[in-house]
Amino acid sequence: MIKSINHIGIAVTNLEEAIETFRKIFQFTEVHREDVPDQKIKVASFKVGDMLIELTYSTSPDGPIGKFIEKNGGKGGLHHIAFESDNVGEELKRIEAEGIALVDKAPRQGAHEMMIAFMHPKSTAGVLMEICQPKN
Amino acid sequence: MIKSINHIGIAVTNLEEAIETFRKIFQFTEVHREDVPDQKIKVASFKVGDMLIELTYSTSPDGPIGKFIEKNGGKGGLHHIAFESDNVGEELKRIEAEGIALVDKAPRQGAHEMMIAFMHPKSTAGVLMEICQPKN
Repeated sequence: MIKSINHIGIAVTNLEEAIETFRKIFQFTEVHREDVPDQKIKVASFKVGDMLIELTYSTSPDGPIGKFIEKNGGKGGLHHIAFESDNVGEELKRIEAEGIALVDKAPRQGAHEMMIAFMHPKSTAGVLMEICQPKN
Repeated sequence: MIKSINHIGIAVTNLEEAIETFRKIFQFTEVHREDVPDQKIKVASFKVGDMLIELTYSTSPDGPIGKFIEKNGGKGGLHHIAFESDNVGEELKRIEAEGIALVDKAPRQGAHEMMIAFMHPKSTAGVLMEICQPKN
Protein backbone atom coordinates (compact mmCIF):
# COMPACT_ATOMS: atom_id res chain seq x y z
CA MET A 1 0.00 0.00 0.00
CA ILE A 2 0.94 3.65 -0.27
CA LYS A 3 2.27 4.74 3.12
CA SER A 4 3.26 8.38 2.90
CA ILE A 5 4.41 11.20 0.72
CA ASN A 6 8.07 10.91 -0.23
CA HIS A 7 8.69 14.09 -2.20
CA ILE A 8 7.19 16.89 -4.25
CA GLY A 9 8.82 17.62 -7.60
CA ILE A 10 9.04 21.25 -8.69
CA ALA A 11 10.28 22.20 -12.17
CA VAL A 12 12.55 25.25 -12.04
CA THR A 13 14.14 27.36 -14.76
CA ASN A 14 17.07 28.53 -12.61
CA LEU A 15 18.31 25.96 -10.11
CA GLU A 16 20.61 28.15 -8.02
CA GLU A 17 18.04 30.94 -7.71
CA ALA A 18 15.35 28.43 -6.71
CA ILE A 19 17.61 26.89 -4.04
CA GLU A 20 18.26 30.33 -2.55
CA THR A 21 14.56 31.29 -2.62
CA PHE A 22 13.46 28.09 -0.92
CA ARG A 23 16.32 28.33 1.58
CA LYS A 24 14.85 31.64 2.75
CA ILE A 25 11.44 30.05 3.25
CA PHE A 26 12.38 26.63 4.65
CA GLN A 27 15.70 27.46 6.36
CA PHE A 28 17.32 24.17 5.37
CA THR A 29 21.07 23.75 5.65
CA GLU A 30 21.67 20.62 3.55
CA VAL A 31 20.99 20.22 -0.15
CA HIS A 32 21.35 16.90 -1.95
CA ARG A 33 22.45 17.41 -5.55
CA GLU A 34 22.25 14.80 -8.26
CA ASP A 35 22.46 14.56 -12.03
CA VAL A 36 19.95 12.19 -13.63
CA PRO A 37 21.24 12.11 -17.22
CA ASP A 38 18.66 9.64 -18.58
CA GLN A 39 15.90 12.06 -17.49
CA LYS A 40 17.96 15.06 -18.73
CA ILE A 41 17.67 16.77 -15.36
CA LYS A 42 19.71 18.06 -12.46
CA VAL A 43 18.06 17.65 -9.08
CA ALA A 44 18.55 19.57 -5.85
CA SER A 45 16.50 18.37 -2.91
CA PHE A 46 16.06 19.38 0.71
CA LYS A 47 14.00 18.11 3.65
CA VAL A 48 10.77 19.61 4.96
CA GLY A 49 9.70 17.52 7.94
CA ASP A 50 9.85 13.88 6.82
CA MET A 51 9.60 14.55 3.11
CA LEU A 52 11.74 16.10 0.41
CA ILE A 53 11.19 18.92 -1.99
CA GLU A 54 12.95 18.04 -5.22
CA LEU A 55 13.86 20.95 -7.47
CA THR A 56 14.31 19.67 -11.01
CA TYR A 57 16.19 21.63 -13.64
CA SER A 58 16.09 20.55 -17.26
CA THR A 59 19.40 20.12 -19.06
CA SER A 60 17.71 19.68 -22.46
CA PRO A 61 14.48 21.01 -24.03
CA ASP A 62 13.52 17.48 -25.15
CA GLY A 63 13.60 15.95 -21.66
CA PRO A 64 10.41 15.55 -19.58
CA ILE A 65 11.03 18.69 -17.50
CA GLY A 66 12.07 20.68 -20.57
CA LYS A 67 8.79 19.72 -22.25
CA PHE A 68 6.78 20.54 -19.12
CA ILE A 69 8.33 24.02 -18.95
CA GLU A 70 7.68 24.61 -22.66
CA LYS A 71 4.00 23.61 -22.26
CA ASN A 72 3.82 25.84 -19.18
CA GLY A 73 4.71 28.98 -21.14
CA GLY A 74 8.41 28.82 -20.31
CA LYS A 75 7.75 28.81 -16.57
CA GLY A 76 8.42 26.28 -13.85
CA GLY A 77 5.91 25.09 -11.28
CA LEU A 78 4.54 22.07 -9.43
CA HIS A 79 5.44 19.02 -11.49
CA HIS A 80 4.66 15.80 -9.59
CA ILE A 81 4.01 14.21 -6.22
CA ALA A 82 5.74 11.02 -5.20
CA PHE A 83 4.31 8.55 -2.71
CA GLU A 84 6.21 5.85 -0.92
CA SER A 85 5.46 2.15 -1.01
CA ASP A 86 7.31 -0.92 0.26
CA ASN A 87 6.79 -2.64 -3.07
CA VAL A 88 6.34 -0.52 -6.19
CA GLY A 89 5.95 -3.57 -8.44
CA GLU A 90 2.99 -4.97 -6.49
CA GLU A 91 1.47 -1.51 -6.10
CA LEU A 92 1.55 -0.99 -9.87
CA LYS A 93 -0.24 -4.30 -10.45
CA ARG A 94 -2.92 -3.46 -7.89
CA ILE A 95 -3.47 0.06 -9.24
CA GLU A 96 -3.55 -1.06 -12.87
CA ALA A 97 -6.15 -3.72 -11.97
CA GLU A 98 -8.24 -0.84 -10.54
CA GLY A 99 -8.23 0.76 -14.00
CA ILE A 100 -5.61 3.46 -13.40
CA ALA A 101 -3.41 4.05 -16.47
CA LEU A 102 0.34 3.83 -15.93
CA VAL A 103 3.24 5.58 -17.63
CA ASP A 104 5.65 2.94 -16.28
CA LYS A 105 4.31 -0.60 -16.22
CA ALA A 106 7.38 -1.73 -14.30
CA PRO A 107 9.55 0.06 -11.73
CA ARG A 108 12.69 1.79 -13.00
CA GLN A 109 15.67 3.44 -11.32
CA GLY A 110 15.20 7.08 -10.28
CA ALA A 111 17.11 9.64 -8.22
CA HIS A 112 18.16 8.82 -4.62
CA GLU A 113 18.71 5.19 -5.76
CA MET A 114 14.97 4.60 -5.55
CA MET A 115 12.83 2.37 -7.73
CA ILE A 116 10.09 4.55 -9.22
CA ALA A 117 7.08 4.45 -11.55
CA PHE A 118 4.65 7.10 -12.75
CA MET A 119 0.88 6.86 -13.11
CA HIS A 120 -0.67 8.57 -16.12
CA PRO A 121 -2.19 11.98 -15.24
CA LYS A 122 -5.22 11.25 -17.45
CA SER A 123 -6.20 8.69 -14.80
CA THR A 124 -5.38 10.83 -11.77
CA ALA A 125 -7.39 14.03 -12.21
CA GLY A 126 -4.59 15.69 -14.21
CA VAL A 127 -1.95 15.24 -11.49
CA LEU A 128 1.34 13.53 -12.31
CA MET A 129 1.93 11.00 -9.52
CA GLU A 130 4.89 8.77 -8.84
CA ILE A 131 5.17 5.75 -6.60
CA CYS A 132 8.62 5.14 -5.22
CA GLN A 133 10.43 2.64 -3.11
CA PRO A 134 13.53 3.74 -1.23
CA LYS A 135 16.59 1.48 -1.36
CA ASN A 136 16.77 -0.83 1.66
CA MET B 1 9.63 27.81 11.46
CA ILE B 2 8.02 25.57 8.89
CA LYS B 3 7.85 22.07 10.36
CA SER B 4 6.21 19.80 7.85
CA ILE B 5 3.83 19.48 4.95
CA ASN B 6 0.19 19.72 6.00
CA HIS B 7 -1.67 19.12 2.74
CA ILE B 8 -1.55 19.20 -1.04
CA GLY B 9 -4.40 21.00 -2.79
CA ILE B 10 -5.64 19.51 -6.06
CA ALA B 11 -8.22 21.34 -8.19
CA VAL B 12 -10.80 18.93 -9.62
CA THR B 13 -13.64 19.39 -12.10
CA ASN B 14 -15.73 16.49 -10.74
CA LEU B 15 -15.49 15.98 -7.00
CA GLU B 16 -17.22 12.59 -6.72
CA GLU B 17 -15.25 11.09 -9.61
CA ALA B 18 -11.98 12.40 -8.14
CA ILE B 19 -12.79 10.92 -4.71
CA GLU B 20 -13.46 7.51 -6.30
CA THR B 21 -10.29 7.64 -8.41
CA PHE B 22 -8.09 8.55 -5.47
CA ARG B 23 -9.81 5.97 -3.26
CA LYS B 24 -8.64 3.28 -5.70
CA ILE B 25 -5.06 4.52 -5.46
CA PHE B 26 -4.79 5.41 -1.77
CA GLN B 27 -7.34 3.00 -0.26
CA PHE B 28 -8.60 5.53 2.29
CA THR B 29 -11.83 4.90 4.14
CA GLU B 30 -12.58 8.33 5.62
CA VAL B 31 -13.25 11.52 3.69
CA HIS B 32 -13.64 14.90 5.38
CA ARG B 33 -16.05 17.10 3.46
CA GLU B 34 -16.40 20.84 3.91
CA ASP B 35 -17.92 23.81 2.13
CA VAL B 36 -15.79 26.96 2.15
CA PRO B 37 -18.26 29.51 0.75
CA ASP B 38 -15.95 32.54 0.95
CA GLN B 39 -13.48 30.70 -1.30
CA LYS B 40 -16.32 29.39 -3.49
CA ILE B 41 -15.16 25.82 -3.09
CA LYS B 42 -16.18 22.45 -1.76
CA VAL B 43 -13.38 20.43 -0.25
CA ALA B 44 -12.98 16.69 0.22
CA SER B 45 -9.83 15.57 1.97
CA PHE B 46 -8.28 12.28 2.97
CA LYS B 47 -5.10 11.22 4.77
CA VAL B 48 -1.95 9.85 3.16
CA GLY B 49 0.51 9.09 5.96
CA ASP B 50 0.62 12.18 8.18
CA MET B 51 -0.64 14.64 5.59
CA LEU B 52 -3.86 15.33 3.74
CA ILE B 53 -4.74 15.49 0.09
CA GLU B 54 -7.37 18.17 -0.32
CA LEU B 55 -9.55 17.91 -3.41
CA THR B 56 -11.02 21.33 -4.18
CA TYR B 57 -14.06 21.75 -6.38
CA SER B 58 -15.10 25.20 -7.54
CA THR B 59 -18.70 26.24 -6.99
CA SER B 60 -18.31 29.38 -9.11
CA PRO B 61 -16.17 30.33 -12.14
CA ASP B 62 -15.07 33.56 -10.42
CA GLY B 63 -13.60 31.85 -7.34
CA PRO B 64 -9.85 31.10 -7.07
CA ILE B 65 -10.22 27.44 -8.11
CA GLY B 66 -12.64 28.36 -10.91
CA LYS B 67 -10.10 30.81 -12.27
CA PHE B 68 -7.27 28.28 -11.94
CA ILE B 69 -9.25 25.71 -13.93
CA GLU B 70 -10.11 28.27 -16.61
CA LYS B 71 -6.43 29.24 -16.98
CA ASN B 72 -5.54 25.55 -17.08
CA GLY B 73 -7.63 24.93 -20.19
CA GLY B 74 -10.68 23.73 -18.27
CA LYS B 75 -8.72 21.01 -16.50
CA GLY B 76 -7.88 20.39 -12.87
CA GLY B 77 -4.43 19.65 -11.50
CA LEU B 78 -1.96 20.38 -8.73
CA HIS B 79 -2.99 23.70 -7.17
CA HIS B 80 -1.00 24.39 -4.00
CA ILE B 81 1.12 22.95 -1.21
CA ALA B 82 0.48 23.85 2.40
CA PHE B 83 3.15 23.76 5.09
CA GLU B 84 2.57 23.73 8.80
CA SER B 85 3.90 26.25 11.28
CA ASP B 86 3.24 26.88 14.99
CA ASN B 87 2.80 30.57 14.31
CA VAL B 88 1.67 31.70 10.86
CA GLY B 89 1.78 35.38 11.82
CA GLU B 90 5.45 35.31 12.84
CA GLU B 91 6.34 33.12 9.88
CA LEU B 92 4.79 35.65 7.48
CA LYS B 93 6.82 38.49 9.02
CA ARG B 94 10.05 36.49 8.79
CA ILE B 95 9.42 35.41 5.18
CA GLU B 96 8.38 38.89 4.05
CA ALA B 97 11.55 40.33 5.61
CA GLU B 98 13.45 37.83 3.42
CA GLY B 99 11.89 39.46 0.36
CA ILE B 100 9.24 36.84 -0.42
CA ALA B 101 6.00 38.41 -1.72
CA LEU B 102 2.80 37.46 0.11
CA VAL B 103 -0.78 37.14 -1.06
CA ASP B 104 -2.01 37.31 2.55
CA LYS B 105 -0.12 39.73 4.78
CA ALA B 106 -2.01 38.43 7.80
CA PRO B 107 -3.38 34.96 8.61
CA ARG B 108 -7.04 34.28 7.76
CA GLN B 109 -9.43 31.43 8.50
CA GLY B 110 -9.29 28.46 6.10
CA ALA B 111 -10.73 24.93 5.96
CA HIS B 112 -10.24 22.53 8.91
CA GLU B 113 -10.49 25.57 11.26
CA MET B 114 -6.88 26.44 10.44
CA MET B 115 -5.32 29.87 10.19
CA ILE B 116 -3.77 30.16 6.75
CA ALA B 117 -1.87 32.53 4.46
CA PHE B 118 -0.56 32.22 0.92
CA MET B 119 2.79 33.34 -0.48
CA HIS B 120 2.80 34.83 -3.96
CA PRO B 121 3.90 32.30 -6.63
CA LYS B 122 5.98 35.00 -8.37
CA SER B 123 8.30 34.75 -5.35
CA THR B 124 8.27 30.96 -5.05
CA ALA B 125 9.36 29.66 -8.47
CA GLY B 126 5.78 29.65 -9.78
CA VAL B 127 4.45 27.39 -7.01
CA LEU B 128 1.45 28.48 -4.94
CA MET B 129 2.40 27.83 -1.32
CA GLU B 130 0.34 28.17 1.84
CA ILE B 131 1.45 28.31 5.46
CA CYS B 132 -1.09 27.00 7.90
CA GLN B 133 -1.49 26.64 11.63
CA PRO B 134 -3.84 23.96 12.93
CA LYS B 135 -6.26 24.92 15.67
CA ASN B 136 -4.91 24.04 19.11
